[in-house]
Amino acid sequence: MKVVKFGGTSLASGKQIQKVLSIVISDPKRKIVVVSAPGKRFADDTKVTDLLIACARKKLRGEDATDWLEAVVERFASIAMDLEMSNDIVKEIRADLEERLRGYKGDPERFLDHMKAAGEDNNAKLIAAYFQERGIEARYVSPKEAGLIVTDEPGNARVLPESYKRLYSLREQSGIIIFPGFFGFSKNGDVVTFSRGGSDITGSILANGVKAELYENFTDVDAVYAVNPTFVSHPTEIQELTYREMRELSYAGFSVFHDEALIPAFRAGIPVNIKNTNNPSAPGTKIVNERETKNGPVVGIASDEGFCSIYIQKYLMNKEIGFGRKLLQILEDFGLSYEHIPSGIDDVTVILRENQLNQELEQAILHQIKEKLDADEVKIQHRLALIMLVGEGMRRNIGTTARAASALAKAGVNIEMVNQGSSEVSMMFAVKEEVERRAVQALYEEFFVSVPV
Amino acid sequence: MKVVKFGGTSLASGKQIQKVLSIVISDPKRKIVVVSAPGKRFADDTKVTDLLIACARKKLRGEDATDWLEAVVERFASIAMDLEMSNDIVKEIRADLEERLRGYKGDPERFLDHMKAAGEDNNAKLIAAYFQERGIEARYVSPKEAGLIVTDEPGNARVLPESYKRLYSLREQSGIIIFPGFFGFSKNGDVVTFSRGGSDITGSILANGVKAELYENFTDVDAVYAVNPTFVSHPTEIQELTYREMRELSYAGFSVFHDEALIPAFRAGIPVNIKNTNNPSAPGTKIVNERETKNGPVVGIASDEGFCSIYIQKYLMNKEIGFGRKLLQILEDFGLSYEHIPSGIDDVTVILRENQLNQELEQAILHQIKEKLDADEVKIQHRLALIMLVGEGMRRNIGTTARAASALAKAGVNIEMVNQGSSEVSMMFAVKEEVERRAVQALYEEFFVSVPV
Repeated sequence: MKVVKFGGTSLASGKQIQKVLSIVISDPKRKIVVVSAPGKRFADDTKVTDLLIACARKKLRGEDATDWLEAVVERFASIAMDLEMSNDIVKEIRADLEERLRGYKGDPERFLDHMKAAGEDNNAKLIAAYFQERGIEARYVSPKEAGLIVTDEPGNARVLPESYKRLYSLREQSGIIIFPGFFGFSKNGDVVTFSRGGSDITGSILANGVKAELYENFTDVDAVYAVNPTFVSHPTEIQELTYREMRELSYAGFSVFHDEALIPAFRAGIPVNIKNTNNPSAPGTKIVNERETKNGPVVGIASDEGFCSIYIQKYLMNKEIGFGRKLLQILEDFGLSYEHIPSGIDDVTVILRENQLNQELEQAILHQIKEKLDADEVKIQHRLALIMLVGEGMRRNIGTTARAASALAKAGVNIEMVNQGSSEVSMMFAVKEEVERRAVQALYEEFFVSVPV
Repeated sequence: MKVVKFGGTSLASGKQIQKVLSIVISDPKRKIVVVSAPGKRFADDTKVTDLLIACARKKLRGEDATDWLEAVVERFASIAMDLEMSNDIVKEIRADLEERLRGYKGDPERFLDHMKAAGEDNNAKLIAAYFQERGIEARYVSPKEAGLIVTDEPGNARVLPESYKRLYSLREQSGIIIFPGFFGFSKNGDVVTFSRGGSDITGSILANGVKAELYENFTDVDAVYAVNPTFVSHPTEIQELTYREMRELSYAGFSVFHDEALIPAFRAGIPVNIKNTNNPSAPGTKIVNERETKNGPVVGIASDEGFCSIYIQKYLMNKEIGFGRKLLQILEDFGLSYEHIPSGIDDVTVILRENQLNQELEQAILHQIKEKLDADEVKIQHRLALIMLVGEGMRRNIGTTARAASALAKAGVNIEMVNQGSSEVSMMFAVKEEVERRAVQALYEEFFVSVPV
């Protein structure tokens, strides 16, 4: 049995939903279909979920939200028309939306969650109806009926462990199950949504619950690329990567989806296949527990900018037990999270995301560090980029560091920082933002183009 | 004016003290001479300070310590005889030692300090007398007379800031001052010693106090070597290095002396010249505030073994604010100091000196980390060596990392860890202990032998 999830662009129009239908029926193992709300049809389009949020906010302000409600109905109506479906489904959706809009507003977050969930919920109903009209045995199953119980944290729900056992009984149902993504129900029976992109989470939970042999995640790209395609044109597609590699690659903001969504599938050891709705015959990228490392030490390169480093120097720092802990306490008191803290004998550097700071906060932090830790010198460097080289077994491959550092040197890139050896599957370089592109290109050239290893 | 300090081996015999005299009088700027206690004359010899400690401990146990006292007197008598001095000085030393031995024993640490200081103190008196007998204007000055006031921490005294002003008046004295190293006086007038090797500290304090143009530190090697001579025969001698470089080199236990002793001279910007008593015409190694970097990026390579790494893995670790701080708190609670903490997205590694642990403690720490931090995996790797590449401006030299990593790869050395970017003047590699020698040799070959840069 396979769990198949389709993202917003795969369901944005009738034409796309026709593709979805043929994909699902082309493999009898595709029994559980998790759907998102209709996404963008073109670059400037608005996602149905965003229309619903605008609608809910307007209503919460006490204003008339009919315009937004009509916009949502219009999107579904257009899909139904494309699919030559009867108007009944549109009426049903309108009625559902109007009822939600009349709902209790005393708890705004809960009201918002209720409205947001309408995109996936109604899309699932529409798609189930469409499958039925095409003579396919299919039915809509709600998370409530299936027993997908979550914590009562609106907008940030987490699945409760007892759900898995209940979801297992979905295996016994005949026909295809169309399941709305993005939300579950609290123990009290309230709709609670996952964090944004939460349909991936639903698919992953269901794959775990029914112990699927595969979780297929259909999106709008053929595969996960080995490098950001805005830096390198037509980069290598990754055929297979491990969960750990996926996670490291997503570290620097380079991800086709929510990597944390994978946790439930990961825990159950279920492989994930990222595929393209618009090119379903492409093999896509498979995310697995273990893989053979036959294509050299590096599987992918990720990078992101917007980091800064705070350098702290104090003579005899390394003799001072508790110095590092006190430094981290200061960061924690300011609510800051950090990426790395490379340290030397008399100095330590903290790398963190720049967007956590503004000028005032920055001054306050530098001042506190200087005062509380009695530091000799504290200085900040802005506009750094972090580059991650990721690959299983990289650590055991003598010479990977040398190849990477030499490639950067040849490209005239100065390495501000190297962090290697914590993770067994990655190596981090910090460079100035202005050379990020050049650095990534040089590393790609070294590990994916020049010499096959 | 120069402050000149002679170490124990430079003063171990009459013959050595004759060399000291010629060195001092060969430069009229050498006005202040700081002396250690007589050290070893040959490999199996015992230092006078160690004889004094044995003597004091025996006395404190309530036993007769005459044998040890005689051994100390004997060392001084042998020096006096070598120098053809009258027996008066030996009588004076014996009387001093007997008086110290009769001293108050209610505070054993203070008694011990009093005894330990006798080596330097009597040696200074002997040397002053010898200089006088040779017709040189010289006199013994005690730390009390000079105003070298320290904190009342027996065996670990720190200079009090007011001392510097008092010491400045030593400039006004005519002739050569012979000053005992290793101890000062508390505000109450008690003898208090510095930590072991403390004559270097005395010299450094005096250099600061009198605002010397140079602090000459005479020892028994021609220079600081660029690499451990047990790994590479006849290594390059370092002509000049900065305080920062010296400090980084001494990090991994590779040091001709107490690098912390330099702090007072360092604060006053006074250069230090490490020279050889047995080869005073050799230029030695100069430690300065700034230097021209004309000989390539690397000035020296230090290494030490006996490290271990604790690897901690936890899914979503980087989302958990406070994780790092809690980890460091656990280490602090166990009284452990760490060297480095490289971190990844879901993992962090702590590098620390292995000699802080035993099997029981190790199990307790691993257990606490697993429990308190709810880690998915905790494991320890033993027998690591750290190698430091040190050099000013290394960071701005594109390609240093590449050269180092390539040299290690060519030597078949797997890099377990790289830490670069905290300090601007060093780069750290961790390797398995069994390849330390090979790794150091490869790096030395790359930066000091093969290609001049």
